[in-house]
Amino acid sequence: MSEIQAFPSAVRVAQSWLARYRAVRAQSQALCAPLLPEDTVVQPMLDVSPPKWHLAHTTWFWETFLLKEYVPGYQLFHPEYAFLFNSYYNSLGSRVNRADRGTLSRPALADVLAYRAHVDAALEALLTETDELPTTFYELLELGLQHEQQHQELLATDIKYILSTSPLAPAYLAAESLLEGEEVEAVASGAAAWLAVPGGIHRIGFRETGFCFDNELAAHEVLLAPFELQNRLVTNAEYLAFMETGGYRDFRYWMGEGWDLAQAQGWEAPLYWMQKEGCWHRFTHHGLQALNPLAPVTHISFYEADAYANWAGARLLTEAEWETAARHFGASTAEGTWLESNVLDPQPVPADADPTACHQLLGDCWEWTYSAYHAYPGYQRAAGALGEYNGKFMVNQLVLRGGSCATPESHIRLSYRNFFHADKRWQFTGIRLARSLSE
Amino acid sequence: MSEIQAFPSAVRVAQSWLARYRAVRAQSQALCAPLLPEDTVVQPMLDVSPPKWHLAHTTWFWETFLLKEYVPGYQLFHPEYAFLFNSYYNSLGSRVNRADRGTLSRPALADVLAYRAHVDAALEALLTETDELPTTFYELLELGLQHEQQHQELLATDIKYILSTSPLAPAYLAAESLLEGEEVEAVASGAAAWLAVPGGIHRIGFRETGFCFDNELAAHEVLLAPFELQNRLVTNAEYLAFMETGGYRDFRYWMGEGWDLAQAQGWEAPLYWMQKEGCWHRFTHHGLQALNPLAPVTHISFYEADAYANWAGARLLTEAEWETAARHFGASTAEGTWLESNVLDPQPVPADADPTACHQLLGDCWEWTYSAYHAYPGYQRAAGALGEYNGKFMVNQLVLRGGSCATPESHIRLSYRNFFHADKRWQFTGIRLARSLSE
Amino acid sequence: MSEIQAFPSAVRVAQSWLARYRAVRAQSQALCAPLLPEDTVVQPMLDVSPPKWHLAHTTWFWETFLLKEYVPGYQLFHPEYAFLFNSYYNSLGSRVNRADRGTLSRPALADVLAYRAHVDAALEALLTETDELPTTFYELLELGLQHEQQHQELLATDIKYILSTSPLAPAYLAAESLLEGEEVEAVASGAAAWLAVPGGIHRIGFRETGFCFDNELAAHEVLLAPFELQNRLVTNAEYLAFMETGGYRDFRYWMGEGWDLAQAQGWEAPLYWMQKEGCWHRFTHHGLQALNPLAPVTHISFYEADAYANWAGARLLTEAEWETAARHFGASTAEGTWLESNVLDPQPVPADADPTACHQLLGDCWEWTYSAYHAYPGYQRAAGALGEYNGKFMVNQLVLRGGSCATPESHIRLSYRNFFHADKRWQFTGIRLARSLSE
Amino acid sequence: MSEIQAFPSAVRVAQSWLARYRAVRAQSQALCAPLLPEDTVVQPMLDVSPPKWHLAHTTWFWETFLLKEYVPGYQLFHPEYAFLFNSYYNSLGSRVNRADRGTLSRPALADVLAYRAHVDAALEALLTETDELPTTFYELLELGLQHEQQHQELLATDIKYILSTSPLAPAYLAAESLLEGEEVEAVASGAAAWLAVPGGIHRIGFRETGFCFDNELAAHEVLLAPFELQNRLVTNAEYLAFMETGGYRDFRYWMGEGWDLAQAQGWEAPLYWMQKEGCWHRFTHHGLQALNPLAPVTHISFYEADAYANWAGARLLTEAEWETAARHFGASTAEGTWLESNVLDPQPVPADADPTACHQLLGDCWEWTYSAYHAYPGYQRAAGALGEYNGKFMVNQLVLRGGSCATPESHIRLSYRNFFHADKRWQFTGIRLARSLSE
Repeated sequence: MSEIQAFPSAVRVAQSWLARYRAVRAQSQALCAPLLPEDTVVQPMLDVSPPKWHLAHTTWFWETFLLKEYVPGYQLFHPEYAFLFNSYYNSLGSRVNRADRGTLSRPALADVLAYRAHVDAALEALLTETDELPTTFYELLELGLQHEQQHQELLATDIKYILSTSPLAPAYLAAESLLEGEEVEAVASGAAAWLAVPGGIHRIGFRETGFCFDNELAAHEVLLAPFELQNRLVTNAEYLAFMETGGYRDFRYWMGEGWDLAQAQGWEAPLYWMQKEGCWHRFTHHGLQALNPLAPVTHISFYEADAYANWAGARLLTEAEWETAARHFGASTAEGTWLESNVLDPQPVPADADPTACHQLLGDCWEWTYSAYHAYPGYQRAAGALGEYNGKFMVNQLVLRGGSCATPESHIRLSYRNFFHADKRWQFTGIRLARSLSE
Repeated sequence: MSEIQAFPSAVRVAQSWLARYRAVRAQSQALCAPLLPEDTVVQPMLDVSPPKWHLAHTTWFWETFLLKEYVPGYQLFHPEYAFLFNSYYNSLGSRVNRADRGTLSRPALADVLAYRAHVDAALEALLTETDELPTTFYELLELGLQHEQQHQELLATDIKYILSTSPLAPAYLAAESLLEGEEVEAVASGAAAWLAVPGGIHRIGFRETGFCFDNELAAHEVLLAPFELQNRLVTNAEYLAFMETGGYRDFRYWMGEGWDLAQAQGWEAPLYWMQKEGCWHRFTHHGLQALNPLAPVTHISFYEADAYANWAGARLLTEAEWETAARHFGASTAEGTWLESNVLDPQPVPADADPTACHQLLGDCWEWTYSAYHAYPGYQRAAGALGEYNGKFMVNQLVLRGGSCATPESHIRLSYRNFFHADKRWQFTGIRLARSLSE
Repeated sequence: MSEIQAFPSAVRVAQSWLARYRAVRAQSQALCAPLLPEDTVVQPMLDVSPPKWHLAHTTWFWETFLLKEYVPGYQLFHPEYAFLFNSYYNSLGSRVNRADRGTLSRPALADVLAYRAHVDAALEALLTETDELPTTFYELLELGLQHEQQHQELLATDIKYILSTSPLAPAYLAAESLLEGEEVEAVASGAAAWLAVPGGIHRIGFRETGFCFDNELAAHEVLLAPFELQNRLVTNAEYLAFMETGGYRDFRYWMGEGWDLAQAQGWEAPLYWMQKEGCWHRFTHHGLQALNPLAPVTHISFYEADAYANWAGARLLTEAEWETAARHFGASTAEGTWLESNVLDPQPVPADADPTACHQLLGDCWEWTYSAYHAYPGYQRAAGALGEYNGKFMVNQLVLRGGSCATPESHIRLSYRNFFHADKRWQFTGIRLARSLSE
Repeated sequence: MSEIQAFPSAVRVAQSWLARYRAVRAQSQALCAPLLPEDTVVQPMLDVSPPKWHLAHTTWFWETFLLKEYVPGYQLFHPEYAFLFNSYYNSLGSRVNRADRGTLSRPALADVLAYRAHVDAALEALLTETDELPTTFYELLELGLQHEQQHQELLATDIKYILSTSPLAPAYLAAESLLEGEEVEAVASGAAAWLAVPGGIHRIGFRETGFCFDNELAAHEVLLAPFELQNRLVTNAEYLAFMETGGYRDFRYWMGEGWDLAQAQGWEAPLYWMQKEGCWHRFTHHGLQALNPLAPVTHISFYEADAYANWAGARLLTEAEWETAARHFGASTAEGTWLESNVLDPQPVPADADPTACHQLLGDCWEWTYSAYHAYPGYQRAAGALGEYNGKFMVNQLVLRGGSCATPESHIRLSYRNFFHADKRWQFTGIRLARSLSE
C-alpha cells in the first residue's frame, strides 16, 4: 500500500501573475503526486470526478478561454480534448456524459500531464513575451486561477472519497495519528459559548478590493433580527450524543426528504464513520483514525445538520446572519486549517483559545446555512460561456459559508458563497448552532 | 363520453361550524360527481392521487385527529383504513407507498362514500349534541376544513391530469368554448403596464384575524429595494412569442437543472398544449380548446417561468416583494376566477379594466416566486402529528403566491404560502414579471 | 365488499360458428361480471393488464383482423381505439406503452362494453347474413376465438392479482372455504408414485384434427432416454417441507439469476402465501383461505420449481418428456379443474383415485418444463401481422405444459405450448418431478 | 498513445504441470503488458471487468481452491482479498458488488502483481517440492489452468471494449492495417457453398481424452433431421447488405425482445462499427480499421444473428447440429485464428481454400446457436463451491460454439459449450447459416 510522507508545500500569494500562475498550476499537480495512476481514473460516485479529469479540465479551461483567444495561431494540443474535458458549458458544445468520466482510461495520466505542459508553456510564453494584454485577459487569468483552485478543493475531497471505497483504507498522507493523546487533553472540552449579534440593517456581499465571484455581488443591505450563535462548530462528541439518543431514528427532527433519503440509504452516522473493535473511527486522508471527540463533526448533509440543530433546540444560521456575525467578530483565517496547512482534517479549538471569541469561522468546515443559493439583488449573468459559471446553478441548492480545511486560502473570505444540494456529504461540511433573540 | 353540465355551486362562508363542515364536505363530493368510478382510481403520475384516495384521505384526517380523540368509544369504520389512507404522517405508522395509490381498486368508490357518511354522521352528531368542546377541538376542526379544501384544489388539478392522459380528451365540464369570439375582442390586448413599489422596511406574514397556517407566521419585517411589477400575468400570446423565438432551444435563459429536464422530457410548450390542425390548443376541464391568446399562460414549471423572465429581460418577484406589492395595491379576490367561480381556467383581464390597477393577483394562477420555501423567523413546528403538516417540507421547494382558479376562496389571502418543486407543472401556475428600480 | 355467488357457466363446444362466437364472447364478459368498474382499470404490475383492456383488446382483434377485411364499408367504432388497444403488433402501428395501460380511466367500462356490442353486432350479422366466406375468414374466426380464450385465462389470473393487492383481501367468488374438513381426510395423502416411461424415438407436436397454434408444428420425432415421473403434482405440504428446511435460504438449489432475484425480492414462499395467526394462508379467488396441504403448490416461478426439484433430488421434465408421458398415460381433461369447472384453484387428487395412474396432467397447473420456448423444426412465421402472434417470442422463455384450472377447456391439449419467463409467478404454475432411468 | 509492437508468444501445450502452470500464468500477464495502469482499473459496462480484477481474481482462485487446501500453514497474501476478488461464489462469502469493480483503484496493479508473485511462488514450490499429491489436487490444478485461460479470452475482449470507449481509439497492438490490398484480392469472394449433413441418431458431448468442463457431459445421442450449412461464416459484406436493405428497420426479422432492445439502444450496425469519411470502419485491437468485406462479421448479438438469418431466408444451427457438422467435416484448429495466432481479429477464408470443405468452424468466431444453454441429460452439479462453476447459469442463455480468435487453443474443441445472454455483443461472435433439408 502506498503511503506518501510528503504533502506539497503551500501556495502563498505570489508577487506576479507569472509566479501565481506557476504556483497554482504546481499545486494541482502536487495534490496528485501521492496518487498512483490507477487512483486518477475512477469515479466511484457521480459527484466525484477522476483526478486525471480535474487535471485536464482545468487545463482545458486555460486553453479554451485564454490561449485560443489571445495567442494567434495557437495549436490545440489535441482536437478531441474539448469534447473530453468540457465540464458543463453548453455554449461550448457536446461533452462526455458526466456519469462516464470514470470509464475512460485514455488519455492516460502521462498524456494529461503532457497536455498541462503544453498549455503551461504557451501561457507562460504569453505572460513573459507580451507586454500589453487587454484588461479582459487579466480578468480571465484571474478567473482561471480561481477556477483551478476550486478544483483543488474538489481534488482533495474527491481523492478522499476514491481512496475510501477500498476496504484497504489506504492513506493519502503519512498515517500519523491525527489524535495525539497530549493534544486531546489540551483542547477545550467544555460547552460552546453563545455570542450575541445585534439586529438591524446590515450590509452583506463583497465590498473589499481584489477578486470575487459574480455571485457575491451586488453587496446589499439586509434587515436582521437579533440572534446568537455558538462560538465554535459542533464537535464529534456532541454529534455522537445526537446519534446515541436516537437522532437517526426519530423523524421528528428531520426534513421529510432528508428522512426518506436517510432511511433509503441506511444512514446511521456521518460519511466515513465506521465502527472498529467497538469504537468509532473515521476514514481520513491519513487512513482510518480513531474519532477525535473534540474536532468538529464533518461530512454531514444539510439534512443531518438541520436535524442535529432541531434535536439541540437550536437552528442553523442564514447566510446573511453568518456573514454579519463573521464581520461582527472580525473572523480571520489565522486560526483556520485550510488546504495550505497540510492537515486536511478540521482541528479542535485549542485549549488556550479565547472563550469569548468566535472560533472556526474560516477554514475549518463549510457551514451549512438555511439559505437557498439564489441570486443576490441586481445579479446579472455574464455574456458568453462564462455566464454558465455560477448563474445557472441558482436554484435547489443551499449556501455554505466559511471555507474548509481543504479550501485554498484565497477562497476563504467573508462574502464567499459555496453551494451544494442538501444531500451532499463528501465535502468538509460542518454545523454551527444559532438561536433567535427576542428584540 | 360523459360530459357534465352542472358544476357544483360554490361553498360560501357558513354561519356555523356545522354548516361550514357540511358545505366543505359536500364540495369535495360535488367535485367528484362528474366522474366515473374508473376515473377515481388511477394515478397516471406520482404527484397525482386518485380522486377516490382524496375522498378517503380527507375523511381519515377527521377520523384520526378528531373522532378518535373526542368521541368516547368511537368505532373505526374499518381497521385497515388508517394504513390505506394516511398520506405522509410518520407519527401515525406505516402506509401505502405513494407510488402505489393507483394500483388499489379496493376499497371501491362506494365503500369510500360509505366511509365518508360514517364519519360525517359521527362528526355532525358531535357538533350537534355536544355543547362545550375544548378550544383545541375547534382548532382541529378549522384545520380539518382547511385541509379538505386544500385537497379540493388537488382534486381539480388531479382530475384534469387524469382525463388528459386519454387520447379521447374527455371533458369534465360541459364543453362550451372558453374562448368566445366577442369576448376576445373585448379584452385588453395591449402590453402590460409596469407599476412601481417603493423600497424600505415592509411587514409580511399573517397579521389579520381568522385562520392561517403556521407557515405564514411569524409576521416579520423585511427590507426591500424599490421594484416594479407588471399589472397582469404573462399571457399565452406573450409566451408563444417566447416559444417561437426559440425559448425552449436556448440554454442561456435556463437554470441548468431545468434545461437538462426540458431536454430529457422533450418540453416544447407548457403542459397540456398540443398542436391540432396547425393551431395550438390546450386540454382543459372543458376538453380540448383553442388557445386564448389573452388568457394567462398556465401549467408551467418554475424553470419555464424563470426562463421566460430572462428572455423578457425581467425577473420573477420574491415572495416578500409579491406580498408587499399585493398589500400596496390592495389586491382582492373580487376579480379572481377561483374555484367557486365555476370556470376552472384562468381568464383574461377584462377590456374595461383599470389600466393603472394591478390585476390577477388573487385567484387566477399561482405565481412562481424566486423564493425558497423556508421557515419564517421564529417558526416552530407543532408538537405531535400535526408538526408534520408544513414544517418538514421547508427545503428544496419554491413559494407560489396568489391562489389560482382552482383554489377555494378561503385559501386565497395575501399571506398564503403555497410551495412546489421547481419542475411541477400540473397546478395552475403562472408568471408575473418584475424589475429592480435604482434607488 | 362485493362477493359474487354465481360463477358463469362453462362454455361448451358449440354446434355452429355463431353459437361458438356468442358463447366465447359471453364468457369474457361473464368473467368480469363480479367486478366493480374500479377493478377493471388498474395495472398493479407490468404483466397484469386491466380487465377493461382485455375486454377491449380482444374486441379490437375482431375488428382489425376480420371486420375491416370482410365487411365492406365497416365503420370503426372509434378511430383512436386501434392506438389504445393494440397489444404488441408492430405491423399495426404505434400503441399505448404497455406500462401505461393502468393509467387510462377512459374509455370507460361502459364504452368498452358498447364497443363489444358494436363489434358483436357486425360480426354476428356477417355470420348470419353471408353464405359463403373464404376459408381464410374461418381460419381467422377460429384464431379470434382461441385468442379471446387465451385472454380469458389472463383475465382470471390478472383479476386475482388485482384483488390481491388490497389489504382487504376481497373475494371474487363466494368465499366458501376451499378446504372442507371432510374432503381433506378423503384425499390421498401418501407419497407420490413414480411411473416409468420407456426411451426411444417418440413423436411430439400436434397431429390430431382441429385447431392448433403454429408453434405446435411441425410434429416431429425426438429421441428420449428412459425416465420416470411422479403420478401427481407436488403438494403444498411437500413444498412447505422445502421451505421449512431452508429451501429459500440455500443458494445451492438455485439457478444464479433466480437466487439473486429471490434475495432482491425477499421471496420466502410462493406468491399469495401469507402467515395469519401463525398459519399459512393463500389469497385465492375466494378470498384468503387456509392452506390445503394436499392441493398442488401453485404460483411459483421456474426458479422455485427448479430449486424444489434439486432439493428433492429430482429434476423437471423436458417438454418432449412431458408430452411423451402424457400421451403414454392417456391423459385426458376428465379429471382437470379447468376454467369451466368453476373453482379457479387446483384441487387435490381424490382419495379414491387410481394410485397407478398419472394424475393432474391436464387442467390443474401449468407445469414448468426445463425446455426453452424455441421454434420446432420447420416452424415458419405467418406472413402479415399474425406472424407476430407466436414467433417473435421464441427466445428467453420456458415452456409450460398441461393447462391450469384457469385455462379454457379447448386450450388444454397434449401438444399445447405455453411459455413464460422464468421469474413469473402470477399464473397457476406447478411442479412435477422427474428422474432419469439408466438404460 | 501507447502502441505496442510485440504481442506475447503463444502458450503451447507444455510437457509438465509446472511448465504449463508457468506458461498459462505468464500468458495472462503478457496480455496486460501493453496496458497502462489506468487501463487496468475501469469498467465501462457491467459485463466488462477491469484487467486488474482479472489478474487478481484468477490468482484468488489458485489461493482459495489449491493453496489453502494443500499447503499446510499457507499465509494469505492479504485477508481482504477474498472479499475483493471472489467473482460469484456464494459458497465463499460476500464480495464486491459486480457493478463496483471499476470504482476500486486499490489494490493497485503493482499490488496485484505482487499477489500473483506470492501465489506463484507458493504454487510452484508445491509442484516442485511435493512428490505425491492427491488426484483431486491435479483435477483442481487442471481446472485452475482452464479457468485462467477463460479469463484470458475475457481479458482480450474486455481490453478491446475498454480502449474503444475513448474517442482517441487507441491501439492495443501495433496499428498495422489488418486489411492489406493484396490479401483482399487474394481471398475468396464468391458466395458461400452449402454443405449437407445427413439426419439420424448422432452422438454429441465430450468423448475424447483429456480435460473437459462438466457441462460437456454426459455425451448422449440426439436425433437430427437432415440439414445443410454454409461452408464459411457470414462476411462483413454480406452483413452490410442486410443493413443497407433495412435489416435494422424491419421488425419482421427480429425477436420481439431483440427489436425492442435495438430500438432502445439505437443499434444500426454491429458493435464497434462506425462511419468515418463515408466509409465503415471497425474499432479493433489494432485501432480503427477500414472494414474488410471478406472477413467474418463479428460482435453481433444473438438477436442480430437471428434477424440476419431470417432476412437471408435461412436459420441458425442448433448446438447438436453444429457439433454433428463439425465432427462430420473433421473440423480442426489448423485454420483458426485463435489467441495464440497473435491477430485478435477473425480473418477471411484464404483464396486458395478448398471450396468443398467447411471453413472457420474453430477459432474464428463464436457461432450463435439456436439452443438454450441447459444441462445435458445426466448432468450433475459438483459438490462444494465448484458446483457454482457452470450449473447455476443453465437457464436464459444461449449456446455458442467453435471458439474465437481470442480463445486459447486448448479451449477450442468440438464439444465445448460457451454461453451468453442473447443481447451480448462484446465477444467475438459470428453467424453461420443453416437450412433444413427435406427427408
